[in-house]
Amino acid sequence: MSTATAEKLDNSVGKDELLDLHPRDLRALARAGKWTGTTEGLATGYAQANLVIIPKEAAFDFLLFCLRNPKPCPIVEVTDPGSPMITQVADNADLRTDLPMYSVYENGELVAQPTDITEYWRDDLVGFLLGCSYSFETALLNANIPLRHQDEDKIVSIYTTDVQCAPAGRFSGPMVVSMRPIKHEQVVRAVQVTSRFPATHGAPVHIGEPSVIGVDLEKTTFQTDYVGPGDGEVPVFWGCGCTPQAVALNSKLDFMITHKAGYLFVTDTLSEEIAAL
Amino acid sequence: MSTATAEKLDNSVGKDELLDLHPRDLRALARAGKWTGTTEGLATGYAQANLVIIPKEAAFDFLLFCLRNPKPCPIVEVTDPGSPMITQVADNADLRTDLPMYSVYENGELVAQPTDITEYWRDDLVGFLLGCSYSFETALLNANIPLRHQDEDKIVSIYTTDVQCAPAGRFSGPMVVSMRPIKHEQVVRAVQVTSRFPATHGAPVHIGEPSVIGVDLEKTTFQTDYVGPGDGEVPVFWGCGCTPQAVALNSKLDFMITHKAGYLFVTDTLSEEIAAL
Repeated sequence: MSTATAEKLDNSVGKDELLDLHPRDLRALARAGKWTGTTEGLATGYAQANLVIIPKEAAFDFLLFCLRNPKPCPIVEVTDPGSPMITQVADNADLRTDLPMYSVYENGELVAQPTDITEYWRDDLVGFLLGCSYSFETALLNANIPLRHQDEDKIVSIYTTDVQCAPAGRFSGPMVVSMRPIKHEQVVRAVQVTSRFPATHGAPVHIGEPSVIGVDLEKTTFQTDYVGPGDGEVPVFWGCGCTPQAVALNSKLDFMITHKAGYLFVTDTLSEEIAAL
Repeated sequence: MSTATAEKLDNSVGKDELLDLHPRDLRALARAGKWTGTTEGLATGYAQANLVIIPKEAAFDFLLFCLRNPKPCPIVEVTDPGSPMITQVADNADLRTDLPMYSVYENGELVAQPTDITEYWRDDLVGFLLGCSYSFETALLNANIPLRHQDEDKIVSIYTTDVQCAPAGRFSGPMVVSMRPIKHEQVVRAVQVTSRFPATHGAPVHIGEPSVIGVDLEKTTFQTDYVGPGDGEVPVFWGCGCTPQAVALNSKLDFMITHKAGYLFVTDTLSEEIAAL
């Protein structure tokens, strides 16, 4: 689909029309202001990524924090300081325009949720793309491991644990996890399947008893739904991309931009291209 | 072996006496100035790492360079700025004392090769441990894939290719590779076996025709030996830890410390602990 075709679509472009689009066409629509919806379920097979943009003076410590905590904070790509361009996992994508919606924070306060951050860009900013869980959820489904929250049309359960991340400079805080109930007989296969996707949180961080990591299953966080384990199911916990955002927000940065939750960056890279063996 | 025992050894401690030592005891010997030899063949099974120490002002770009070129520059651990302590892959090891020998560079010139860098340490330095190839060579041997350079007691052949690394800030340059001749029927297995060790260069970067990556097999670099492929053997090329050192040296840094070639940092982490599936 060409940009010309994209421009014919009006702002009410529906999700059904987007389903078969290549990531570059989705990004072109976002850039043209023609698409401001969530990215869930779009560009099937292609990796999507969380976005965190912070000033360069904090970027080394944040990069170190992500490296030391690869399960909640898998690094997909980092821009050159001052450059909004993504060149490795997408073909010259522009972080200022190519996501459908953003959240802008000043001194830890949400101040805007624009569809374009060109006016906020500064030449000392560094963009971080961090893996999200969509890829491994596809892998689980491909292995015939059902996802209860999807079946029930709910938001996957998310918890703040009492497990502290390895700190780096000003960045520290607890690991945030997502939980999926998995049938006893599929737990081992779920570990194997998700281990292949280290760029998207990889293997679980915990299996079974929630109290070991300080979690009460019924008390979900980040306004997510409770989708608890039923008979014959085990709660399995994976590192969650909410971790780096929560840690960055708590670190007293004077300025930060992220994607709006659910409105991710869509890469040109198939999840299988960056999978382990 | 306790530190007390270690202190009984004199400076002439031979390699045979070191073969069964745990990494922490090898590091204690180095710290006490009792051992100044190479680390090749020691602490079998434990990962060893290349060391690069540079000022913080260049550390973000160097970290970015390593992340963008993970095969030649696999990151094992990075210290907090100003701290010489390694805490993740070893139990509170001190980079100033725990390697047997170092190379100190000022403005790209080698100015000293001390056994201790305490007097050179500054509170703006950052230490990078980068994976080395010893681990995957063990894995190849375990899979019954012979290493000709070891059989012939030579130094593995190393080449500077015409493949440019992905640059980051002031850091750019060609990828350096090591080459091992592998029998036709073992090439696939060699790829599989080394793919399991992403922290130590991982899978090959090229298989077969050397000219594709700008290499003339007989012209080795870094004063290494020529161990070329014989009948029925294919040259297989892996990313080499000489890459980040060469790139850092060429980047006009005013100050840098590395391990002396062959005198690596020995971690407390078994290679299998950080292997992929």
